[in-house]
Formats: sequence, structure tokens, C-alpha cells
Amino acid sequence: MKNKNIVISIISFFFLLAFAQAPSDKEVVERLTKASLVNNQAYETLRYLCKNIGPRLSGSAGERAAITYMEAQMRNYYGFDTVYLQPVMVPHWERGLPEEAAIIEGKKRIAVSVVALGNSAASPKGGINAPIIQCNSLAELTAKAHEVKGKIVFFNRPMNEEHFHTFEAYGNAVDQRSRGPALASKYGAVGVVVRSMSLRIDEHPHTGNTHFGDEQPIPAVAIATKHADFLNKRLTEGEDVFFYMKTNCIKHTDKPSFNVIGEMFGYQHPERIIVVGGHLDAWDNGEGAHDDGAGCVQSMQVVNLFRILKIRPKNTIRVVLFANEENGLRGAIAYSEKVISKQEPHIAAIESDAGGFTPRWFSVDATDDKVADLQFFVPALKQTGIGWIERGGSGADIGPLKPTGALLIGFRPDSQRYFDLHHASTDVFEQIHPRELALGASAMAGLVYLIDKYY
Amino acid sequence: MKNKNIVISIISFFFLLAFAQAPSDKEVVERLTKASLVNNQAYETLRYLCKNIGPRLSGSAGERAAITYMEAQMRNYYGFDTVYLQPVMVPHWERGLPEEAAIIEGKKRIAVSVVALGNSAASPKGGINAPIIQCNSLAELTAKAHEVKGKIVFFNRPMNEEHFHTFEAYGNAVDQRSRGPALASKYGAVGVVVRSMSLRIDEHPHTGNTHFGDEQPIPAVAIATKHADFLNKRLTEGEDVFFYMKTNCIKHTDKPSFNVIGEMFGYQHPERIIVVGGHLDAWDNGEGAHDDGAGCVQSMQVVNLFRILKIRPKNTIRVVLFANEENGLRGAIAYSEKVISKQEPHIAAIESDAGGFTPRWFSVDATDDKVADLQFFVPALKQTGIGWIERGGSGADIGPLKPTGALLIGFRPDSQRYFDLHHASTDVFEQIHPRELALGASAMAGLVYLIDKYY
Repeated sequence: MKNKNIVISIISFFFLLAFAQAPSDKEVVERLTKASLVNNQAYETLRYLCKNIGPRLSGSAGERAAITYMEAQMRNYYGFDTVYLQPVMVPHWERGLPEEAAIIEGKKRIAVSVVALGNSAASPKGGINAPIIQCNSLAELTAKAHEVKGKIVFFNRPMNEEHFHTFEAYGNAVDQRSRGPALASKYGAVGVVVRSMSLRIDEHPHTGNTHFGDEQPIPAVAIATKHADFLNKRLTEGEDVFFYMKTNCIKHTDKPSFNVIGEMFGYQHPERIIVVGGHLDAWDNGEGAHDDGAGCVQSMQVVNLFRILKIRPKNTIRVVLFANEENGLRGAIAYSEKVISKQEPHIAAIESDAGGFTPRWFSVDATDDKVADLQFFVPALKQTGIGWIERGGSGADIGPLKPTGALLIGFRPDSQRYFDLHHASTDVFEQIHPRELALGASAMAGLVYLIDKYY
Repeated sequence: MKNKNIVISIISFFFLLAFAQAPSDKEVVERLTKASLVNNQAYETLRYLCKNIGPRLSGSAGERAAITYMEAQMRNYYGFDTVYLQPVMVPHWERGLPEEAAIIEGKKRIAVSVVALGNSAASPKGGINAPIIQCNSLAELTAKAHEVKGKIVFFNRPMNEEHFHTFEAYGNAVDQRSRGPALASKYGAVGVVVRSMSLRIDEHPHTGNTHFGDEQPIPAVAIATKHADFLNKRLTEGEDVFFYMKTNCIKHTDKPSFNVIGEMFGYQHPERIIVVGGHLDAWDNGEGAHDDGAGCVQSMQVVNLFRILKIRPKNTIRVVLFANEENGLRGAIAYSEKVISKQEPHIAAIESDAGGFTPRWFSVDATDDKVADLQFFVPALKQTGIGWIERGGSGADIGPLKPTGALLIGFRPDSQRYFDLHHASTDVFEQIHPRELALGASAMAGLVYLIDKYY
């Protein structure tokens, strides 16, 4: 009896010792945060990606250089157990040279800068010159369908500045860019000018993709908000306005590309996967710093932070730098098709594709019950800036993983400045704040740690 | 019985109608947020304050111009019921001309930019040239006290970049600037160089106040972090380093100044006060955009938003633009002394003095019970960006109101970029994001609305 008590005491002692020594969730997240704030690996990788490679639209030389560079970075500096490329064919649309040109021709003749939309067609060599017809919605365009033939359609519905969530304002305005040109083409328009998707009034045009579906591609450009306001004023005051535009776009055949993938193997269930990712392609008119170089290096940094703190996950962390998010989503589709066909178990997929700003919350595409289960993570994550976890969308590249049953989670940094830069020439490395980028990486690393531990 | 039922039904109907029509807290905060995001009054007032007045240190012509301008703005555009000035005497320290000069004289001779600390003394006309002795803490200085005489003390302990809360990092480093020069003077040093309180490595020196107490004021300057690192490297490598510095500071007699005060009267308890404020004075080397022009215009905008939405508070909202926060706190002391002597009931005091960045949380200087009582505000405030309400410090200007029993609340915007700009020439209007500034105003307006309603 006495011996038994001693044995129990000794067992209890070691049990308590082990328990006392195991750091709390909060402590682990604190270590991840500190390590992230003092480690500049992700920031420096992003610097090179932006300043030495820069634009990297699908099919371009920049895209190939980015893939080669990021693969080497993952192999050499981040602590992955394996790094490999997943082949995928991507569309190859090119803006062409020389730079696009546009002129508003009313009482005065004003040259304005524009950017062609992805997928749009080149103008005739001498450009197009046609009267402008303004619409603020696709419905208005349909109502005016009989007036459109031979004209250039000007979509000018601004993003609604009343929204705290700027992505909602974007979502409510972007149909003009993504589907407006196809509808204009259907009604016989010869071109389209879209007000840039931005909440600031400035001189920077913002590009983005447009979809023609079965319609004939026509020239389509984005115009800066300041010039959209100017054009609108001319039209509202009843001036006869012509618009001249010249674009040089080329649609090539599909090109081979790759998802860049790295894994840190789980020690207990290496076959179970937690995906963390962003997309590596970026529009050709900027450096793709916030969209989405930031998301790529933050995802890589998750593994780097585990390495630095010597945390070995139970399950495998798989970082995926997706190809072709901007104008095709082919990388995401190829990835999901493969894992679904191979029935690879996916616990969760987390995407950072909303900028490298200071962390705010996680948005989870799952049932209310599952979102409720995640709430106990919030106190530990608060020190990274995460204020809440709520139900909502996740990310374009992880969306196709829905059939796997994985928790789909979007990282949501502060979005107030995001659309000032999104798809514009101003989305450059200098717009990244190193501490904000680092906190995003630690928020994601903390979330991965907790999911790995509890799921 | 039947009649009675009808009467009850009618009463119930009107009761439900009234209940249904009263907007929820969330709805009111949503309206405040939308109104703030589309109204540019605060942003434009701040633009003029920064670009047309700019520096406004206590006792300066800029301070007088700022008081006149802000008083007129409050009278003419913000919907106050009364606007008045509260006299207060403030210290008047001046940097003097020409610009400060400094040279690191080791193997090479490197000119570096410095800024004199507030309250510090002028150097002799020809400047000081003396050997450098480096310390990383006041304790280290005391340990080296016997080596200090005739030398220039160099404080070089960096702000700790591991903190999510940058104000904690500031609080843990700022003793070098605020009390270091007095201690150095006590031990016979002829001057002090302090590493700038910044988390960035760059070329901008950051000023701030220092206190000599009973010690003889000596020349003291801040040096940019980049140059502090350079100087540290020279010293660490064993180089003999002299430092040359020339400052031109003048300590004048106290000058008359004012707190600028505006009130929106309460309809039920006009005698009960909710204070909302910031400080109007700002260092002389920048425009005081984030510190604290932002806090002033956000406080004024609270009343403007109530006016726009036709919300009449039950209690009086009193906006106070405090004088002399930076180098004396005289405005705050004068205000608190007056209200305490007059026994004016204060429900709450809210200060915005942590920058015009995107809202994160409110920090409440009160007991745990009182902080717990405020938690039910969080869901309504979330749409302004407020993620939580927690116990902590409030603000320098409202601190002296503690004896009134008021809830003391500090508005806490995102702080990652704050110390890049704080007290440096880079704290200019262009660093303010209009949406972030507006969200701060709506967060404060929402909080005032809720406190007014429930307290």
C-alpha cells in the first residue's frame, strides 16, 4: 500500500511536471509572435520578389522567375522537409506594347492614363474613337441596349465608401469590370471604360480580369477614379464626349506553369494535411506586394516559425503558392482536383490573400457549429491582433477544396488601405509595413498550431 | 373585460410600435459609421491644421494660430451649442535657430541630423565636442557615474520590437529620454545623445520632452536609429569617438494659452458631462498629424456626427482640446482642477492620443467590475473596428480626472506604424488615411452614444 502510494506520487509528480512545463496556447502564440517580429526572412524574400522580379502574370517570364526563386527560397531558408512543383497549364494574356493610351475628347482634349483589363482585346492599330454612353449597372446597360451599338460604354458606379468591410464594397461594384465588357460586347459596343475599383480619388488606374464567355472580346480599360469623375462631369453637363483608346493586348496559347508546394511533415499523422497558402501570380502593372506576395511569404513563414521554435506538428503543414489566381484560378483547380481524386485528408486550408496589413480576424467558410468550435482560439490569438473569428468567405484558391470537408479559413487583415493599391501600379514593396506583415504570419502560425493541436 | 383587453391590445400595439421603431445600438453605431465614412469635415479640418499651421508647441505663434483656428472651426461647422476658451499658463521652450548640428568624429567624420529634446539647454555658441560614453539604461549610467564627467552620454537601448503593443515598447525605453539627461547632468556629463524612440531603422530623429527636475539642464539631442546603430558600431569596435553637437534652445517665461472647449448640451442631465478630447499642442519638427491633430478632429467629429444624425444626448458632451500635453500637461491639470473644485459630475472621459490609425480597442482605467460592465458594448462597436474593451491606461490629459470617478477611456487604434512617425518630421498630414481617421471618430461617437444611453 505504501509502495503503491509512492509510485502514484512519483507518477503524479512527473505528470504535473510535464503539465507545468507544457506551455499554454497563449504562451506558444506569444513565442510565435515574438519570433515573427524579430525575424525578417519573409520581409526580405518579399523584397526580392517585388523589387527584382516584380510583375508575374500567368505565362510571363516574370511568373517563371518567381516560381524558380520562391522554390529555391523554400528549399534553402524556411525549413521545409520537401519542396516540389505541381504542373498546371495557365492562360497567357499579355498587355502588349507600347503603353495604352486614352483621350477624353469633349470641349477640351484630355489625355488620361488607363490600363487594359485582363482578357480584353486589342483595339485596331490606330485606336478606337467613339461616343461615350454612361451606365452605372449592368441592368442600366441592358435597359439602354438599343443605344449602345458603335459606342464605348462607361461604367461609373463607385465602390460604396460607407462599408467598414471594403471587400463588400468591392464585391458590390466589381461586376462592372468582370461582366460589364461581355454584356457591352453583346449589345454591339466597340469598347468599355470602367471606373477603377478604388475608394480613393486619385490618378492611378486599377486593372483586373474580365470574362467574355461566349461574347466577342472587345477592348476594355480601367480609368482612374479622378478621371472617371471628370468624364462623368462632362457627360452630366450635357457635353458631347468622345473617347479615344488604344490597347495592344495579345491572347497567347496556354502555357505550362506550376503550383509551388512545400511540406513540413507531421510526426503523428503525416497523411493529414493543413494547407496554408497564397497565390504567386500578380498583375503586370505593379509588384504584387500586397496582392499577393505578402500572402505567399506569410505562408512560408508559418513553417519557418515552427522551425525556429522547434515545433514539430502532428499533422503535415503544406504550403501552396497557387498559380494563376488573377485570371483563371487554374492552380487552385488543379490542386483541388488532385487531392480530391487521391482522397488526401485535409483538416483545414488557410489563405492569406487580402493584403499584408495588420491582422483583424479570421473568416471561416463552415457551418455555425464549426465556427463556434473555433471561438476558444480567440484569446490566444489576440496578441497577434486577431479580434474575432466569424463565419464568412475564405479565399479564391482554397474555395475548390470545399468537397474535402476541410475548414476553409481566410486571413483578414485590416482592409482600409487595400483597395488604394489593389491591381494598381502602386502595389509595391514600399507599401508593406514589416511589423504588420510579421503579425500576419504569426496570426496564421498561431492558428495552424491550434488547429494542429486540437483537430 | 372585453374593453380592458382592447385597451391592453392598443397599449401593447403602440408599445411594440415604439419598440420596433427605436433603432438598436448596432443600428445607431452603423449610422454613425456610415456618416463618418462619407463626411470629410474632420479630415479637412486636420488638413488645414497640419498644412497651413503645422508645428504648434506650447507658447509658440503656431499654438496661438491653432487655438484660433480650431475655436472657429468648432463654432462654425461642428454643431456645438457653446464654444469657449479656458485660460492656462504654459511653458515656452523653443528650439531656436539655426538648425541643430551634430558630427560623429571617429576614424571618419560623419555629419548626422539630430533634434534637441524639449527642455534641454543650448550648447555653448561654438558647440560641444566631447568623448562619448555609451549606456543602455539609467542603472548602467549610475554604475559608470565616475567615468561620466566631461563626456557626452549616449543612451542606446532600442525599443523592444517583440511587443505587439508598441506603446509598451515605448514605455520600456522612454526613461532614457525623459530622465536620462537629468541623471547624466547630475554625474557631470556635458551633453546627452538619445537613440530615437522608434521601431524603424531610418534617418529621422524623434524629439520629445526631458525633465531635469533639480539638476542643471544640459544639451540633449535625439539621434536617428540608423545613426545610433552606426555610433554603437564604432564604439563596439573600440574606436575612439568624439561627438560634436550644437543646439540653440531657449527657455522663455511661461505664456498664456487655452484649452479649447465645446459642448453639445444634454437634454435630460445637462450638468452631467462626458468628456471627449485630444491635445492641440504638437512638437515643432512636424505637423502633429497623428500626435495629436487626429485626436482633436476625431473628438470634434463626435459632436458633428450627433448633429448630422440629429441625436441629442441625454448628458452633455464636452469636447476638450487640451493645451500643453507634450511638455507640461498644464491644460489637463487646469481642466481637472476646475471641474474638481466645482464638483462637476463627470460620467466618462475618452481621449484619442494614440494616432489616427484604424480602430482596435478601448482601454479603460477602472476596476475589473466596471470594465466587465462595458463588455456588452463590443458587438455594436465591432463594425467600427473595435475588437475588444479591456482594462489598462487611458490618456495623459484625462488621467488627472481620476478623482471625479469618471470612467477614463483611451481610444486605441492600430499602433504598428505610430512610432515610425511619433515626434518626428514625418508626422505629417499625408500619413493620415481618411477612412482610418473616420472610423476612429465613429468608434468614439459610438462609445459616447452607448455611455450616454446606459450610464
